[in-house]
Amino acid sequence: MMLTAAAASAQTTTWNDPMKAGYPTVQNQAWTSEIGHSYVRMPDRAEAQVRKPLWDLSRNSAGLALYFTTNSPTITVRYKISGAQTMPHMPATGVSGVDLYRIDSVGGQDFCFGSYSFGPKVQYSYSALAPSDLSGADREYHLNLPLYNTIDSLEIGVAEGSRFSFLPKRTEKPIVVYGTSIAQGACSSRPGMSWINIVRRNLSDYPVVNLGFSGNGRLEPEVLALIAEIDAEMFVLDCMPNLTQKSADEARDLVLAAVAQLRKSSDAPIILVEHAGYSNAPTNAAQLDCYTRLNRGQRQAYEQLKAQGVKDLHYVSHDELAYPSDAWVDYVHPSDLGAQRQADVLTEKIRSVRNH
Amino acid sequence: MMLTAAAASAQTTTWNDPMKAGYPTVQNQAWTSEIGHSYVRMPDRAEAQVRKPLWDLSRNSAGLALYFTTNSPTITVRYKISGAQTMPHMPATGVSGVDLYRIDSVGGQDFCFGSYSFGPKVQYSYSALAPSDLSGADREYHLNLPLYNTIDSLEIGVAEGSRFSFLPKRTEKPIVVYGTSIAQGACSSRPGMSWINIVRRNLSDYPVVNLGFSGNGRLEPEVLALIAEIDAEMFVLDCMPNLTQKSADEARDLVLAAVAQLRKSSDAPIILVEHAGYSNAPTNAAQLDCYTRLNRGQRQAYEQLKAQGVKDLHYVSHDELAYPSDAWVDYVHPSDLGAQRQADVLTEKIRSVRNH
Repeated sequence: MMLTAAAASAQTTTWNDPMKAGYPTVQNQAWTSEIGHSYVRMPDRAEAQVRKPLWDLSRNSAGLALYFTTNSPTITVRYKISGAQTMPHMPATGVSGVDLYRIDSVGGQDFCFGSYSFGPKVQYSYSALAPSDLSGADREYHLNLPLYNTIDSLEIGVAEGSRFSFLPKRTEKPIVVYGTSIAQGACSSRPGMSWINIVRRNLSDYPVVNLGFSGNGRLEPEVLALIAEIDAEMFVLDCMPNLTQKSADEARDLVLAAVAQLRKSSDAPIILVEHAGYSNAPTNAAQLDCYTRLNRGQRQAYEQLKAQGVKDLHYVSHDELAYPSDAWVDYVHPSDLGAQRQADVLTEKIRSVRNH
Repeated sequence: MMLTAAAASAQTTTWNDPMKAGYPTVQNQAWTSEIGHSYVRMPDRAEAQVRKPLWDLSRNSAGLALYFTTNSPTITVRYKISGAQTMPHMPATGVSGVDLYRIDSVGGQDFCFGSYSFGPKVQYSYSALAPSDLSGADREYHLNLPLYNTIDSLEIGVAEGSRFSFLPKRTEKPIVVYGTSIAQGACSSRPGMSWINIVRRNLSDYPVVNLGFSGNGRLEPEVLALIAEIDAEMFVLDCMPNLTQKSADEARDLVLAAVAQLRKSSDAPIILVEHAGYSNAPTNAAQLDCYTRLNRGQRQAYEQLKAQGVKDLHYVSHDELAYPSDAWVDYVHPSDLGAQRQADVLTEKIRSVRNH
């Protein structure tokens, strides 16, 4: 049941490097003036400030995207990656793959399927993007980059003689999400299905910065100091699933400190997100205790901050998230089913905060 | 964010082999008298009748399950597999993993998380299944077997001194599904999330036989001859996605012949399922043409058979399936999001057929 990519190989390809466009092309990236020449998520100077595991994860391209227009009937994406291609519970398409969507005439997005080959060099080949010659008008495409791998270099190939332009990075103040593996994108089947990327599509590709760091989203002050540099429309703090070793009081205090730290430099809305829970909480008392304990702590922080008069603070509870019971691939990482649920709830919350 | 399996290793384990229970223990298997001593899906004599790719796929344990009761606080499943552990778009947990659910006091099912290790030998270790000693009453567990791998041998380990019993195979006339890779379980993140296994859970674990054969579910008479041997409650024919090379007329004729072949030996209800479509149909005219062509052919067969007075024939259309636009991992294989949708629609249809 595989498609052939014959059309892509039958014609000469012209290659385009986003890094050579002459203007910033990496969407949903913060610190563009420092790192716009790369597919990373934190500036190099952060290496001296944050723990090594977090800095290493910041090299992953989670949430980043490239937007371009072309009239080519074929599109080929080839890139080099330097991390593991797969995880036991997340396929290569999600860890290391890309996802192309085409913008339709009313702003909707249509998924494009490309045949793929994985290795240190990865290639996705899209063909039969109608019409089959160069007679068509330019169409806009959005390419989601790998969730759990690091891109060393990337090129986009189109049919020789076709038009091609990278769209410049959007300049709106971004929504910034600081979170865990779940925010980074585990364990979506492909990049377009990470919950942050779904939210972004739901919001007509309004910029959303993914600062999810697998296992290392812990509300740490040195990370928040970096995040506080970003001139954001909104902050989303979604770190509870990485605080499993903390008591309720410790979780509360971390949230109190995080909000205070962001409020020193920004009045932007802050959304606090509860732990969505564990799939195995009904069969494992320790797991039930863990997420309810952390959520209790964060809820205390929220109530306390509201009582102190902190403005524009918002909350998404476990009960609002309401994952279906089979939403996870393992004990904590949502599949596409859970990611869609998380995205739907967060989209509604962001919209309601905007209308607040 | 991994859990330790310390509890499982701290005590001596007693191993139980389903093949040595003295009675059939493999759930959702047809031809039990012939193959109940194995984790395969077709009798050995089929090797001489069907194409080799289909016979090879019939060695995979898709849809098979083991039910047991125990009061052990720990459960370990260890087994040997002989196929590839993973696919680029389907993780090891789905291709080669198992999924344990615990039956609750009102018949609901709670997912249990086990830490895992993959290789030619696979092990899942479940701990902290409360209570933590052997003081508890027996609980019933259902173990879903790998979707895309072949089990050579399997054992279930429990704490020494605990009670343990395999439940005998359920004896109701099964629902039999003949289908494609999608029916076999591609590309669910874990066995419990294949659409057929979700349907089975929705129906209180009423037996559902999975005869999905990746790429090889083609309404072939030699396969239908074998299927017609099964004394089924209901048949589900879901082969359209493997008929991509056929015209509408050829698809129609295959459906007409398939229904006639089953009706020779059975009056059981038959549900015809349309192709759920392709994720990239909006961007690829050939893909749009393909699934609509096949569905047109099957619909003609359905109308013709109804006009001929064939009884108890039912239909699930593409519009009823109504996958969300991001329900697929690639162009045709549903992720957990799509599988949940397929299962919800088929569950409703099966219920309505039963009440027909």
